[in-house]
Amino acid sequence: MSFSHVAVIGLGLIGGSVGLAIQRHLPDVLTSGYDGDPDVRRRAGELGLVQQMHDSAADAVAGADLVILCVPVGAMGAAARDMAPGLRADVVISDVGGSKVAVTQALQAALPGRCIIPAHPVAGTENSGPEAGFATLFRQRWCIITPPADAPADKVAAVVSLWEDLGAMVECMDAAHHDMVLAVTSHIPHLIAYTIVGTASDLEQVTRSEVIKFSAGGFRDFTRIAASDPTMWRDVFLNNRDAVLEMLDRFLTDLGMMREAIRAGDGPTMFDLFSRTRSIRRSIVAFGQDDARPDFGRGDHGTRKD
Amino acid sequence: MSFSHVAVIGLGLIGGSVGLAIQRHLPDVLTSGYDGDPDVRRRAGELGLVQQMHDSAADAVAGADLVILCVPVGAMGAAARDMAPGLRADVVISDVGGSKVAVTQALQAALPGRCIIPAHPVAGTENSGPEAGFATLFRQRWCIITPPADAPADKVAAVVSLWEDLGAMVECMDAAHHDMVLAVTSHIPHLIAYTIVGTASDLEQVTRSEVIKFSAGGFRDFTRIAASDPTMWRDVFLNNRDAVLEMLDRFLTDLGMMREAIRAGDGPTMFDLFSRTRSIRRSIVAFGQDDARPDFGRGDHGTRKD
Repeated sequence: MSFSHVAVIGLGLIGGSVGLAIQRHLPDVLTSGYDGDPDVRRRAGELGLVQQMHDSAADAVAGADLVILCVPVGAMGAAARDMAPGLRADVVISDVGGSKVAVTQALQAALPGRCIIPAHPVAGTENSGPEAGFATLFRQRWCIITPPADAPADKVAAVVSLWEDLGAMVECMDAAHHDMVLAVTSHIPHLIAYTIVGTASDLEQVTRSEVIKFSAGGFRDFTRIAASDPTMWRDVFLNNRDAVLEMLDRFLTDLGMMREAIRAGDGPTMFDLFSRTRSIRRSIVAFGQDDARPDFGRGDHGTRKD
Repeated sequence: MSFSHVAVIGLGLIGGSVGLAIQRHLPDVLTSGYDGDPDVRRRAGELGLVQQMHDSAADAVAGADLVILCVPVGAMGAAARDMAPGLRADVVISDVGGSKVAVTQALQAALPGRCIIPAHPVAGTENSGPEAGFATLFRQRWCIITPPADAPADKVAAVVSLWEDLGAMVECMDAAHHDMVLAVTSHIPHLIAYTIVGTASDLEQVTRSEVIKFSAGGFRDFTRIAASDPTMWRDVFLNNRDAVLEMLDRFLTDLGMMREAIRAGDGPTMFDLFSRTRSIRRSIVAFGQDDARPDFGRGDHGTRKD
C-alpha cells in the first residue's frame, strides 16, 4: 500500500518541509494542512506548503489516509483530539516529535483504537516558522520510526516508503531506545548550548559586546543551536525527562572529572580525551552526516582559496 | 615604524596562515620560519608557508625585526630560549597563544629585557598542521593584543598595523581580562564539546554507530570543535586554569538549575532561558562573526533551493 492523501497538522519548519517535500517527490499525493495559529495558516497558504489549507483540523484531515502531526511534542494530545472528528476509519496517524515514549502515549490516549506509527526525522535548522521550511531538509538525513508492537506491517512499510521517497534513510527501533539515543545526540547538546549561552549573557566580568566579538573562538557554534525554537525544546525536556536526566548525569560526571584534571594540572588525562574525540568526527563526515570542509564550509571562509 | 622581516616559529594552522597572509598582503615583508618537527619543516617548505625555511630557530630569527611564536602555549618558553641566540637587539617578540597571562610570564622569563607584545588572533578551524593554513584565516576576525604596561607605543602600533594588514580587527586589553573573555568564548565551549563527545563515545545503551547516524540532531556540531588539536588544547587548560575554573563553575551552577527545572517539570524556567538565548545569535550574525544562512550554510543543504 501507499498513501494518496497526506494531511499535515502544524506548518512550521518541519511540517512545512514535509508538505514541500511531498509535493516535490510525490506529485500524485494530495497534501492538505492546518495550523492552530491563523497567521501561520495564512503564511503557509501563501507559501504553498500544502496544496489545500483548511481552517479546522477536522476539515484538513477529512479523507486523508495519513496524518502527520508536526506540532511541539507537548501539543500532540490536544492536536489529536482536535482533529479526531474528521478522521477516516482506516487512517494512519504519524508525527515528527523529538521524544517518542510520551508522544506515543499521548496519541494512543487521544485516539484510542487508531493505527499510530510515530516517526522522528532527525533533521532541522535553527530557524522556525513556515518560512523556514524547504523541500530538501530530509535529504540524506535519518528518520527513526518507532512502530508499536501491534502496528500492521503493511502500514509500517508505507510510512517507511514515504520517508524514503522524501530522501531520508529510515531506521526502526522501539520508542524507549529512541528516547535514549536522542537524549545524547540531540537533547543534551541543546541543553548544554542553551545553558552556556545563558551563562555568557549573564557575566559581569565579560561584556555582551566582548562575547559577540570574540565568539569565533568556539562560542558562536553553540549560539546556533541555542537559537532553536523555545516551545519545541521546552516540550522535549518535559517529555523525555528520564532519558535526559540519565544522560545529563553521565555528562556531569565526565565534566567533573575534567574539572578535577584542570584543577590538578593533569595534562595526560586531558590529552587522552582530546585525542580520542577526533575519530568520531571523521566517522560522521565519512558517513555523510556533516560537511567535510573545515568550519562546516562556513561562508566567511568561502573565499579561502582566492 | 613597520616591520620588514617577520620570522614565524611553529608552522601549523596558525603559523602557516600567518606566513601565507603576510606574503599575500605585505609582499615587501620578508618571511622566514622554523618548526621543531623536521617533517613539518619539510612540508611547510614545500607549501611555501614562508619564503625562507631554516633548520634552526636561531637561524630563522636572524635579522628579523618581528618574531611571532606560533607554538602551543605550553611550548612558548622553550621555543623562546631555543631562538634566543639569533635574536636582534631591537626585535619585537609576539605570539598567537590562546592564554595570555601565562604566556607573557613564560616569554618574559625566557627573554629578559626583550620587547614582548603578545597577541591572540581569535580565528581557526578544527584542522591542524601545515596543510591546514590559508591566507584568509584572519579576515574579518578579531585579534586581541595584550601589551605590557611598559611596551613602547610605536612598537605596539606596528603590531596592530600588521594584524590589520592581514585582514583582522584589533582590540587591546590586559592579559588577565583576555584570559577571562576567552575562557567563556572559547575554552569552556571546547571543554564542553570534548566532554560530551567523550560521554557519547563511552555509552553502553547507545552504540557508536547510532551516535554517528543520528548526530544531525545537534551532536555533530560539537564534534567539529572536539576535533581540534589535542596538544594545543591541553596546553590552554594547563595555562588558563583559574579563569577556566571560574567560568566552568558558573556554567555548572546554571546547568544544575536547568537539571532541577527538568526534574521538576518546570516549563516556564526552560522557556525563559530558551527564549533569551536567541538574541545573542542574531547579534553575532549582525556583527559579521558568523554565517547568516541556516545551519551555517552547511554544504549538505547547499541545494536546498533547487
